[in-house]
This record gives sequence, structure tokens and C-alpha cells, in this order.
Amino acid sequence: MSALVVPARVHTVDGDARSERDDLLVIEEPLEIRLGHGPKEDRKEVRSSVTMRTPGNDEELVRGFLYTEGIIQDQELLLRVVPCMNVKDEERGNVMRAELHPSVQVDPARWQRNFYTTSSCGVCGKSSIEAVHVQCHQRIRPFGPIDPSIITTLPDRMREAQTVFRHTGGIHAAALFNRAGELLILREDVGRHNAVDKVIGAALARQLTTDNCILLVSGRAGFELVQKCVVAGIPLMAAVGAPSSLAVQLAKESGLALIGFLRGDRFNRYAP
Amino acid sequence: MSALVVPARVHTVDGDARSERDDLLVIEEPLEIRLGHGPKEDRKEVRSSVTMRTPGNDEELVRGFLYTEGIIQDQELLLRVVPCMNVKDEERGNVMRAELHPSVQVDPARWQRNFYTTSSCGVCGKSSIEAVHVQCHQRIRPFGPIDPSIITTLPDRMREAQTVFRHTGGIHAAALFNRAGELLILREDVGRHNAVDKVIGAALARQLTTDNCILLVSGRAGFELVQKCVVAGIPLMAAVGAPSSLAVQLAKESGLALIGFLRGDRFNRYAP
Repeated sequence: MSALVVPARVHTVDGDARSERDDLLVIEEPLEIRLGHGPKEDRKEVRSSVTMRTPGNDEELVRGFLYTEGIIQDQELLLRVVPCMNVKDEERGNVMRAELHPSVQVDPARWQRNFYTTSSCGVCGKSSIEAVHVQCHQRIRPFGPIDPSIITTLPDRMREAQTVFRHTGGIHAAALFNRAGELLILREDVGRHNAVDKVIGAALARQLTTDNCILLVSGRAGFELVQKCVVAGIPLMAAVGAPSSLAVQLAKESGLALIGFLRGDRFNRYAP
Repeated sequence: MSALVVPARVHTVDGDARSERDDLLVIEEPLEIRLGHGPKEDRKEVRSSVTMRTPGNDEELVRGFLYTEGIIQDQELLLRVVPCMNVKDEERGNVMRAELHPSVQVDPARWQRNFYTTSSCGVCGKSSIEAVHVQCHQRIRPFGPIDPSIITTLPDRMREAQTVFRHTGGIHAAALFNRAGELLILREDVGRHNAVDKVIGAALARQLTTDNCILLVSGRAGFELVQKCVVAGIPLMAAVGAPSSLAVQLAKESGLALIGFLRGDRFNRYAP
């Protein structure tokens, strides 16, 4: 049993039967990210809005978030990611600090989730996609042909490796596989975005080349998840659920192979 | 077929079979909310971060969002919600303007999703819950006993009324029912939060009393969805998926009845 869950007493109704038993809940806690220069915490730090996440692998979450949101593209400019010590006891572990190279200037106005789709770039699907492309320095390298039987094995491989889902049934997962379908990294989180950020952050921390990898997500493929995949340069994204219109459009315009409804022996390919 | 979907060509792999066919994708587009005084659009407006949503019922979305995020509690202070006309052609329909009573002052710093869990209140589960309670003027009126067979009929009733899910399989739903299990309002959206905001916004627009209602959501019950339910004073929330630790804690401390894993004849009660 992992520290990602807490016990809870639950009353079950099953037809006419009633029972009471101990169950497990996936933990959800707020996380704040602060950006600063030098090792010392100070008032000049830029503070993020707060994301609700499952604690654990927070360094990876911060690293992946800063990268996929286009805030820190070059990992050498992110000196380290550490828990803030200068916080109240009850906040400990929920505030992470990213120490940036002195050359990096951060614009607090851009320091929001969803900032891709704000401000001068306009509020429409087309400009949302253009904003992603501005952040990406290169086009995705096409994935090329792959045996569909490799694709269809991925959800089972992910599920077998999931520990928290088995206990709670209440968590999202994201997983990175190589071309042969071997699981490289798996992360679970109450938030879909966080699970993807943790996987990408772990890949960055290990200096893993992802341009020949597959990203699998347990839920649907919305614009923001596809955006993260495109920014990370991962050439194939597969989702157990459905993609949205804008997700498909972004995939097509980025050269990302996008698969949805991956269930059993079956899947749909939406792009290319 | 609704305007909430677009056609797409899709390649299907099913075991050894390959086919190509026309499919439908749920539309996802960015939405920006602006807050201002008086009927005239001007530069002094406060602009929100952008949310990705399925277009349609945007007035309800804005109304529900402003209410459940604690920005506009009193509906008489929200004079009207209209599409911004002073935008580029391609942005038309994606920018909504909320016209506030002159007495309302909006703090741009608080004007973010997730602002409950930011700033001075501290970054921990306890303070996240306290922040919700500060926004709610009253405790939830307990729902009282209900026949479980009413609860178990709700998911089918919601699914029968869903139009977009049937076509795309790729959308979240939220629905408001009365005590007898009759469907009052149903909304579908690519975003879980948006579907709930639209339902609550529609209830506000109709001046519907929700303190004897049930809110059903198609996914999981995370903290932010439970927060919206608590702020709206809806006494019972049921989710097809699992709740998180913080969602259960907030429900218990707010007097909200919380049901999860509502499938077939079976469900779990996590609070009270």
C-alpha cells in the first residue's frame, strides 16, 4: 500500500444489501510552485496558482509542468527543484521551489495554467494551436509504421503496473512506452494533467530521449494533454477515451500521431 | 445532431480488420471571461485566464463559474452576461463579458481558477476547506433519507438525456435532479468543471431552488467539483467515479452527502 492513499470508512448499497467496510481514497492536496533565483527563498519569488494533485514525484511534476507549459524549455536553466522550507508546518511538502538560472526572466502575467490560450494571441482554436507552435522549436519527427498489436497491449501493461488504481479505482494514469511497447515510466495522479507532467518531468530528469516514444493516457485526449505531448516532442499519443476537435486539429498540424478509444483489440486513429 | 460536434474522418483498427469512416468529435474551444462595469466595453475590464470548453450555454457557464468560484455570490450584482462584440472575427463567441453592478469591486489577483487554494489562506488541505467555508454563507441543509432505488436510476436517466455523448463518447456530463429523481437540468462539456458550472448557472438563471436537489457527475468527485456543489448549497452529490480524500473531507465538514461509484444497483456513501 502506497502513501498516495488514505483509509476511509464507506457505506455500500448493493441492491437490497447494506454493508460498511474500510476503503482507500486517493490523496488530493494543493501544490504551489514558486520560481526564484539563487538558493535563498525571498519575497521576490513569483508564485503560481495552485494545482490540486496527488503528493509524490513533485519534483517531476514541477519540472514537467514548467517544460510543457513553455516556461523553462532548456533544462540547464532549471538549476534545481526543492520543497520550500520557509513555510508553515501544515504547508510543508505542498510548496515547491524551482531555482532558475540568473539569466531567466519570468513574466508573472504568463505564469498561469492555460496561458497558451490567453492574451495577444487571440481567443480562438487557431491561435491556441499557433501559440503551441511558437513554443515548440521543432516539428515532431513522424513516428512511422508500428504493428497495431503493440498498441493494443499498452493499456493492459499500464494497468498491471498501476498500484493506486487497484486500491482506489479513482486515479488517472499516464505512461511512456518505447517503440517495442516496453513501459519506461508510469505515474498516477488525481489530475490528468499532473500525471502527464510527472511522466514528462521524469523523462527530463533522466535525460531520456522521447522522440521515439509513445505516451498513453487513461482518460480522454483534450487539447491541453495533446499540447503537452507536442511540446515534449513525443511522436505518438494514445488515449483510452475520446479526443476533442481541437486536440485532433493540433495533432494534425504538429505531425503527432493520435489514437483514441484504445480498448481491447480496437482503436481509432485520428491523425495523421 | 448538435452544433457541439464536428465531423472527422477516422481510421479504425479492430483486430486484423481495418476500416475508414466518418465520425464525430466533440468541439473544444477556448473561452475568455471579462468583468466590467456598465454596458460599454473598455480597457479597464478585468480579464480571466482562459478555459477550454465546449461552446454553447456560455452565459450559464459564466454565471455558474462566477458563483461557484465565489466571485459573484449575489445574482442581483451580475447585471447581464453577453458575448463581447469588440473582438476579432475569429474570436467571436469565445469572449464573454459579465456586466457587474457598480458596487462590485473585483480583485484581479483573485481572478483565477483555483484561487480558493492560494494566497494568505495557506497551501494545505485544511486551509483549502476553510477557504470554501469562508465563501459559503450558510451550512448545507441535510438532505435526509432517500430511497436508494431513486439514486441508482440517476445515471441511466442522465445518459438517456445526453445527446453529445451518444455521438462522440467523449464528453463529461453533469445533471441536476429533484428529490423524486426527475431530471431538471443536464449539460455536457469537454471539461468536468464546465459541465457543473453550466448546470449551476442554468439553475441560477431560472432562479431554481437547489437546496433539495441532487447533482450527478459523470466522472470522479474531486475537491473542486465538491467545492462547487457546496458553494451552490446542493445537499447531495453523486459521482459515477471515485472521490478523492480532500473531496470526502470537504463533504463531511460541510454537511454534503457524497456518493461515489454509482454503477448499476450499487453505490458507496462517503459522507455523512
